[in-house]
Amino acid sequence: MDATRLIKGLGLALRERREAQGLSQEALGLATSIHRNYIGGIERGEREPTVRVILELGDALGASAQELFARADELSR
Amino acid sequence: MDATRLIKGLGLALRERREAQGLSQEALGLATSIHRNYIGGIERGEREPTVRVILELGDALGASAQELFARADELSR
Repeated sequence: MDATRLIKGLGLALRERREAQGLSQEALGLATSIHRNYIGGIERGEREPTVRVILELGDALGASAQELFARADELSR
Repeated sequence: MDATRLIKGLGLALRERREAQGLSQEALGLATSIHRNYIGGIERGEREPTVRVILELGDALGASAQELFARADELSR
């Protein structure tokens, strides 16, 4: 398991979900307690987010942690 | 979704996995880059671990993030 690769996949999974809902990073930032710049860094796999941040973003996007990590696994291959 | 509750469930899922393998927190700490005291705090749901730390612990325990979060969901109910 390559954690860096999976964290990048997780960022891609979040971006995919956000874009599928037609939300900007700014709109997602307003819907959560997370700054849009930080959301951008997570989506690019440049940050080391906590589990809580991922749960909050997933919650705002209607995705469970299980769903996000399943998709991250696919996208990281 | 109650993130605090799910993070507690995640700690329980990790403890369950570790104990099923007959590993002490110390042994798991030696197998990863994570201090045994920090592992204890995660298992008790007292810490805010990063995704990377959860992936590293899961890797050492033979569990994917998906598996851990699925079990966390069950254990947090």
